[in-house]
Amino acid sequence: MNKVVVGIDIGGTITKIGLIDKKGKCISKISFRTKENNEFDDFIENIKNSIKKLNKKKLDISSIGIGAPNANSLEGTIETPANLKWKGKLEIIKKLNNFFNIPIKLSNDANCAAMGEMLYGNAKSFSDFIVITLGTGLGSGIVSNGKLVQGFDGFAGELGHFSINNDGRLTGLGIKGGLESYASATGLKRTIMYMLAKYTDNSIFRDVPFNNLHGEDITKAAENNDPIAIKSYEYTGKILGKSLANFVSFSQPEAIILTGGLANSGKWILKPTIYHFEKNLLPFYKNKVKILESGLEEKDAAVLGAAALAWK
Amino acid sequence: MNKVVVGIDIGGTITKIGLIDKKGKCISKISFRTKENNEFDDFIENIKNSIKKLNKKKLDISSIGIGAPNANSLEGTIETPANLKWKGKLEIIKKLNNFFNIPIKLSNDANCAAMGEMLYGNAKSFSDFIVITLGTGLGSGIVSNGKLVQGFDGFAGELGHFSINNDGRLTGLGIKGGLESYASATGLKRTIMYMLAKYTDNSIFRDVPFNNLHGEDITKAAENNDPIAIKSYEYTGKILGKSLANFVSFSQPEAIILTGGLANSGKWILKPTIYHFEKNLLPFYKNKVKILESGLEEKDAAVLGAAALAWK
Repeated sequence: MNKVVVGIDIGGTITKIGLIDKKGKCISKISFRTKENNEFDDFIENIKNSIKKLNKKKLDISSIGIGAPNANSLEGTIETPANLKWKGKLEIIKKLNNFFNIPIKLSNDANCAAMGEMLYGNAKSFSDFIVITLGTGLGSGIVSNGKLVQGFDGFAGELGHFSINNDGRLTGLGIKGGLESYASATGLKRTIMYMLAKYTDNSIFRDVPFNNLHGEDITKAAENNDPIAIKSYEYTGKILGKSLANFVSFSQPEAIILTGGLANSGKWILKPTIYHFEKNLLPFYKNKVKILESGLEEKDAAVLGAAALAWK
Repeated sequence: MNKVVVGIDIGGTITKIGLIDKKGKCISKISFRTKENNEFDDFIENIKNSIKKLNKKKLDISSIGIGAPNANSLEGTIETPANLKWKGKLEIIKKLNNFFNIPIKLSNDANCAAMGEMLYGNAKSFSDFIVITLGTGLGSGIVSNGKLVQGFDGFAGELGHFSINNDGRLTGLGIKGGLESYASATGLKRTIMYMLAKYTDNSIFRDVPFNNLHGEDITKAAENNDPIAIKSYEYTGKILGKSLANFVSFSQPEAIILTGGLANSGKWILKPTIYHFEKNLLPFYKNKVKILESGLEEKDAAVLGAAALAWK
């Protein structure tokens, strides 16, 4: 019987579960609203039942991989996650092990994304690379010598909180100038506000409140030559490109892969990012480090990443 | 017969060579002026003869480790080093292999320092740590998952060139705000100039030209309550501490070990560095990451580091 793994992506809004084979084929999948589970134990029950539903053919599940916010990979816990309703130290692996007596692995979303790119995506041939997820915040998964850089208690790769400017914007954690306050879907929205303050250009965004701003609308506005949208992408790409150039001096990756909502705006974010990245690289790194888009299909990327963790 | 290795530290001024046993004991050592060798081949010859002289007892040399500036560990070459007189790509391993048919390993000084701390010094129990060398410049050796982070072609860990400020001081490579232009022995001297410009305090350094400034004199002045010296250490420690706190979000080391000339000024650099380090750490890193001094005796540290490379 062919072996499969279960990939679970726990998001603030949706939890997605998939049955994945060795080649990265998603055999079946299911999802439910994370918040519909009042207690954490209800959530565990929901996962258990979902896996049963998915595996009607009773394939041999060899392991489970889980991607979650604030995941402590070494202890197998989710710790005081800002986007989930349950508080404290959530012992997800221990609880799932009550039902599934197989290896269960946990890591944060960005680390899963890195494993996914390594096994199924654009990093198959790399042993040194970084994945940057540009979603609500900025996450990072760093691979060096072919292994995930986890840090001594599992919290390495928090580049979204890297401070790039002592007087800069505050992040949710209160970090001044934290990178994700600029380079993320939310950061781009903040930059729209900044540009509306700084310049006098007409813009469709002069009639849109902050809370109604959406990434796709900013891309569409840029396509329509909206000067505020174009300036905002330029500004975001400049900050992201410079920061990524700096990060190269840490682990000298062969490639940096950009994924997530903001990366989906394509050339608008990629062009200024790549330009300022190359411009700011140290002389002996120039023309050696690729900036790539994800090699995973977006709809399945998160679940594939979690599955990759299970296979590894 | 007991096995030994040869550790070679190639500095801009002095080349040191030692015969080291497994426990890190330096059995015998020798040194010569690097610049006295006009051609690179003379230098190689000098190394060969020195090793013969060192090994009069004809111990079994199992391998050679070399620490050098601008070392390409993967190709075994030293590439256009700024502080050495020979130019181009120097094939040091290939040339030494003509005389010594044993494994020869090469890495930059800071990577050797990291290996030395891991084998003989203060990092024996760590699999995730960073060594920062605060000498003429700032070097770094990063260990993650128990392995040196080398990068995809051997040039990872160039944190001295990490840009911390877009409008900042220029480094030798022309990087704006490169960390080593602040946090190094040279950076401290530059900061003395900056403080003499900024403040009107009396200071012994108002009578000393830049080229006559020496680290030990700055420490002595601080001990004597010289306000410019004290302010300069404060300023340097603040920048170094903040930067190190930022670096933790990359690889989450268990400790950061400071070595080299500037680290020898003890509390003057350590106190402000540790204060600003803890202050700027992300909440989930606080009180978890140690700042340590080197565990190696300074006079043998570089040769021990090169020897550690040979043993690994």
